[in-house]
Amino acid sequence: MYDILQNINKPADVKELNNKQLNTLATEIRNAILNRDSMIGGHVGPNLGIVEAAIALHYVFNSPTDKIVWDVSHQCYPHKLLTGRKEGFITDEGMKKISGYTNQDESEHDFFKVGHTSTSVSLACGLAKARDLKGEKHNVIAVIGDGSLSGGEALEGFNNAAVLGSNIIIIVNDNEMSIAENQGGLYTNLRLLRETDGLAELNMFKALGFEYHYVYDGNSIENMIKALSSVKDTDKPTVLHIHTLKGKGYKLAEENKETWHWNIPFNIEDGSPKWDMSGENINDLTYNYILEKIKTDDTIVAINAGTPGVFGLNAERRKTLGKHFVDVGIAEEHAVAFASALAKGGAKPIYLVMSSFIQRTYDQLSQDLALNNNPAVILVAWGGISGADMTHLCSFDISMTSNIPNLVYLAPTTVEEYMAMLDWAVEQNEHPVIIRQPKEMIHTPLPVDTDYSKLNTYKIEEQGNKVAIIAEGSFFKLGKNVAEELGKYNIKPTLINPRYLTGIDKECLENLKNNHQLVITLEDGELDGGFGEKIARFYGTSEMKVLNYGSFKEFTDRANLDELYTRYRLKPELIVADITTILKIK
Amino acid sequence: MYDILQNINKPADVKELNNKQLNTLATEIRNAILNRDSMIGGHVGPNLGIVEAAIALHYVFNSPTDKIVWDVSHQCYPHKLLTGRKEGFITDEGMKKISGYTNQDESEHDFFKVGHTSTSVSLACGLAKARDLKGEKHNVIAVIGDGSLSGGEALEGFNNAAVLGSNIIIIVNDNEMSIAENQGGLYTNLRLLRETDGLAELNMFKALGFEYHYVYDGNSIENMIKALSSVKDTDKPTVLHIHTLKGKGYKLAEENKETWHWNIPFNIEDGSPKWDMSGENINDLTYNYILEKIKTDDTIVAINAGTPGVFGLNAERRKTLGKHFVDVGIAEEHAVAFASALAKGGAKPIYLVMSSFIQRTYDQLSQDLALNNNPAVILVAWGGISGADMTHLCSFDISMTSNIPNLVYLAPTTVEEYMAMLDWAVEQNEHPVIIRQPKEMIHTPLPVDTDYSKLNTYKIEEQGNKVAIIAEGSFFKLGKNVAEELGKYNIKPTLINPRYLTGIDKECLENLKNNHQLVITLEDGELDGGFGEKIARFYGTSEMKVLNYGSFKEFTDRANLDELYTRYRLKPELIVADITTILKIK
Repeated sequence: MYDILQNINKPADVKELNNKQLNTLATEIRNAILNRDSMIGGHVGPNLGIVEAAIALHYVFNSPTDKIVWDVSHQCYPHKLLTGRKEGFITDEGMKKISGYTNQDESEHDFFKVGHTSTSVSLACGLAKARDLKGEKHNVIAVIGDGSLSGGEALEGFNNAAVLGSNIIIIVNDNEMSIAENQGGLYTNLRLLRETDGLAELNMFKALGFEYHYVYDGNSIENMIKALSSVKDTDKPTVLHIHTLKGKGYKLAEENKETWHWNIPFNIEDGSPKWDMSGENINDLTYNYILEKIKTDDTIVAINAGTPGVFGLNAERRKTLGKHFVDVGIAEEHAVAFASALAKGGAKPIYLVMSSFIQRTYDQLSQDLALNNNPAVILVAWGGISGADMTHLCSFDISMTSNIPNLVYLAPTTVEEYMAMLDWAVEQNEHPVIIRQPKEMIHTPLPVDTDYSKLNTYKIEEQGNKVAIIAEGSFFKLGKNVAEELGKYNIKPTLINPRYLTGIDKECLENLKNNHQLVITLEDGELDGGFGEKIARFYGTSEMKVLNYGSFKEFTDRANLDELYTRYRLKPELIVADITTILKIK
Repeated sequence: MYDILQNINKPADVKELNNKQLNTLATEIRNAILNRDSMIGGHVGPNLGIVEAAIALHYVFNSPTDKIVWDVSHQCYPHKLLTGRKEGFITDEGMKKISGYTNQDESEHDFFKVGHTSTSVSLACGLAKARDLKGEKHNVIAVIGDGSLSGGEALEGFNNAAVLGSNIIIIVNDNEMSIAENQGGLYTNLRLLRETDGLAELNMFKALGFEYHYVYDGNSIENMIKALSSVKDTDKPTVLHIHTLKGKGYKLAEENKETWHWNIPFNIEDGSPKWDMSGENINDLTYNYILEKIKTDDTIVAINAGTPGVFGLNAERRKTLGKHFVDVGIAEEHAVAFASALAKGGAKPIYLVMSSFIQRTYDQLSQDLALNNNPAVILVAWGGISGADMTHLCSFDISMTSNIPNLVYLAPTTVEEYMAMLDWAVEQNEHPVIIRQPKEMIHTPLPVDTDYSKLNTYKIEEQGNKVAIIAEGSFFKLGKNVAEELGKYNIKPTLINPRYLTGIDKECLENLKNNHQLVITLEDGELDGGFGEKIARFYGTSEMKVLNYGSFKEFTDRANLDELYTRYRLKPELIVADITTILKIK
C-alpha cells in the first residue's frame, strides 16, 4: 500500500524517483491522508489537492535550505509525509504525535506553528529579508491557498513582498474554493486568469509588480516540476499561480468541496461520519432564530468570515437566508467594521465567529465598534478551555475582549438564556454585544430574564452563606457541582450566574461581604486578564478571600481535557479541597 | 478673511456658490486649516490637499442623506469646515470643542469616530448594505488616502466592496505619500495609473472588478465636480482615483510633505515650531543605539509600519540605516509576522510601534510571534494614560498584550534601564520581548541590571515594611512620591520596580507577607486586565490587602490630564489618603 512512501524519509529521497514512481507516490500519499483523516479527522480536500505540488516542491527545491512556508497548514499533510513524518498518517501512535499543522518542533522542514490563515507571505518575507541581511542564497517559498488571499495580513504581505527586491516565490494554490466558496473581487481576477491561461492583461499580481506565471494543471507533477524549476533561484518576487482540484482523488471530496474541507472521522468507502452528530445543537437553534426573524425584519443580516460550516450555515441554509447572509471571506477585520457600520445604518447585524479567530479583530472591536458604540451583535463559538491544537485555542477571548470599554460580553448558562440574550442583543440599540455560545445543550425549566439592559447585574441562583461561587457560562454547571459537593461539609454556598463578563456587579459583591468569607470564580478561559481577576481586585482591600479558577497563561497543545482540568484544579473535589483548606474546615 | 466661509453653515450653502466663489472658499478653508494647525497642532498636509475634493463632494452630493466616510480622519478638516463646524478652526473655544477627527456626536454629517487607518471602505460597505436591506437609495462614499490602502483592513474592504452589487463610491486620494513615502507593490500600480492618466491596462481596481475613473487634477474644483457628478447615483462599485497635491497652498508643506503631515503648533510665516522640542529624547537614544549596533551586526533591522516620524526616523536617518531599516507602510499585522520570521531566520528585528496602533496586531502577537516564541523585539511608544483624542488612546497596551503567553513585556523606569533592557532584548534568543519606551527622560546614577533573562524578578528599590508600592515604568516616579509622602505618617514603605508586566514575582510577593499589610500597584494604563489585577489575584486568599491604581475602563477624549489623575486618584496625596484610611492611620 505504501511501497514508495515507505522509503521516503526525507525530501532528498523524492529526488531519486522517476516520473512513474512520483505518480505512484502521489497515490500513496492520498491513501495516507485519507487514512489519517478517516481515523482522527482533519483537513481532507486541501491536502488531497496539493499532493502533486508538494511532491514537485520537494523534488525541485532543497528543503530545509530552501524554505517552504505553508499558509494556515491546511495543505501541509503531503509536505509532512515527505519530510520524515509519515507515521503521523499511518500508525495510531504517530497520529497522536504528529499534529495537523506545521510545527518547527516536529521537523526542521517546518519554520512556524501556523493555524490561522493568511500569514505565509509575511512570514516568508521575514525569512527572505533575514537571508539577504546574512548574505545567504536560497529560495524562500510561500504556499497560499486562494481562500487565504482575502485576509488582510496576506494582502499586507503581498504588498511588501512585491518590493522585497530579491528571491521570494509565492505559490498561489487556486482550487477555486475557500473553506466554502470564495468571496470578493480578488476571485473575479483569479477566474479571469484561469480562463485566459494566465494571459489576461488585468492581473492583480502583475499590477503589484510581481513576475507572474500560471500552471493550468497543478495536479500534474510534470507540469509542476517544470514550472518550479523555471522560477527556482529567481532574484525577483514571483507569483506562481497554480490551478488544482480540491479533494482530488477522493470522489466525494471532489464533488462536495465544502463538506470535505475538514472532517470528523469517517468511513472511507462511503464518507459516512464515524461520530453521531445528530441531536439538538446550537447551530440549528441560532439558524432557526435568524430564519424566524427575517420573516418580519428585513434589516437582519448574519455575517461570517469564511467559516460558515462552523455555524452549520451550509449552502442550502445560506441560500435560504439570501440577502440576509453575507460571507465576507477570510476577512475578520472587515467583518467587524462592516457589522458596526450596518448597525450604524440601522440594520441588525449578527457576526458569527470562532473564538480563536476573533483574535484577528482586537482593534476593530475597540475602534470600529466599541468606540462608536454601535449595537452590532457578535456570536462567539467554541469559547473556552479545550483540547484543541495549540494554533486553535479558544481560551483567550474573555481576556482579549472583556477589557475593551463599551463592549458587553454575555455568557449564557443554558440554551434558554442564550436564546433570550440573543434576542435582547438583536433588538436593543444601546450596546455592541458579544455572546459566547454555550458548549453544551443545557436546559432550564425555570423562566429566564429577557431584558439585559441593566448591565452587570449578576443573578443569584441559590442564596447561601460563607462561600459564594461565581460561575460563568459553561462553567455554571461546575459551580453547581461544587455547591453540591460543599453540602457534604454542611456548607450551603451562594451560587451566582454573573451573565456579564465585561463588568462587575458592585452591589451584589458588596452584599456578599455580610455573610460570606470566600468568593470563588469559575471561568472557562484564561485567568490572566480575565473575569475573575476583576473580582479579586474589587475585594482587594476587604476581608473577603477570593480564589480564581480558570486556565493558565499558556499555549496547550491537543491536551487531554481531563488532565488539563486536573492541573487547573477545575474539578468539584479539587475546588472543594481548596475551599476547605482556606476555611480551615475538616 | 473668511468672506465666503462665514456664510457656510451647512453643505447646502456650498451648492449656492458660483465657480469663483468656490475657489475663494478653497483659499479661505486653507487659511482656516492653517489657523487651527498653527494654534493647536494637527494634520496639515493631508487636509490642505483635499480642500477642492471636499468642496466638490458637498457640492455634488447631499450629505447626510448621501454618506461620506473619511478614512482615518486625516483629511476631514475641510469637510468639518463645510458642515457647520468652522468655529473649530477659527475661535479658541471652538478649537477646544471640535476635534481633529470625524465624530458623529459632533455632526450628523459624520458617521463614525475614526482615528486608525484603513477602515473607511469596510465602514462604507456596512452603510451601503444597510441601505440596500432597507430599500433606500442614496450614495455611500468612502474617501481613502493612498497611504491607507496598504492596511489589511482596507484591502479586505476593497475585496468585499467590489462584489457589493450596488452603489459604493471609493475615492482614492492619491497624493503620492503615506505619512512618509509609500511602501509596497500597490504604489507601483498607482504610479503607473498616474503616468498613464488612468489608462494603463494593469489596474488593480479593475482587476478586483471595480468601475474605475481617474482625475488627473484633483485640486481642480471644476474637474472634481465633473468627475463626482459622473459617478453619482451609480449602481456599481466604483473607484474614483484622484491625484492631489499634499500640502497644497502652503509652500513649506508642499516642499516637505513628510514633515508637514502632522505638526505641533507653528508660526505660519516660517513654519517654525512654537514649542521647544530640543533636548534629550528617547528617539535619539534609540536611533543611536541601532546605529551603533549595525556597525558590528549585519542582522539588525529596525521595522516600522508607516509612522517613522513617531520614532524620529526622518528621511536622513532612514537613509543612514539603509538595509537595516524597513518601513512596511501601514501594515502593522505584516510588521509583526515579518519581525517574527526575521528572528526565526536569524536576524535581530526591532519593530517600533505606537501603543495605540499595536492594537492592530493582537492575533499576530499571539499566533505569529508568541506561539512561535521567536526572539523579536518590539518597542512601544507613548504607552500610558494621556490626554489624547479618544481615537488615539495609549492606555490599553498592557491589558492587550500582557495576557498573551510567552511574550515578555518590560517597563523600564529610567533611561538607563531602557537602554539595558533594549540591549538585552536584542541580544537574547529566548523570548519575544516588548519594551515600553519611557515617557520622561528620568536618569539614575545607580547601576542597572543588564541581564533580564530570569523572568518576572521584581527589583526592590527600597526595603521598608507595612506598605509595599509596586510601581511600574513611568509610574515609578509616582511610587517614589507616594513613598516620600508616607514618611509624614512615619511609614517607610517598600518600593518595588516590577520591570516585567507579563508575570508576577511569586517569591517577592510571598516575602512581602511577612511584614506588610498592604500592597498598592501603580500602573500607567487600564486597570481591567492589567498588571495590578494579577497581584490582586495572587493575594486573593491571603491576609494581604491590595489596592490597584490605573485608568478606568473607558474611552477618554482629550482629557485634562490633571483632572484625569485626580479622578483615577493617581496623585501622591490621594493615594496616601487611601492608604491611611485602609490602615486606619490618622
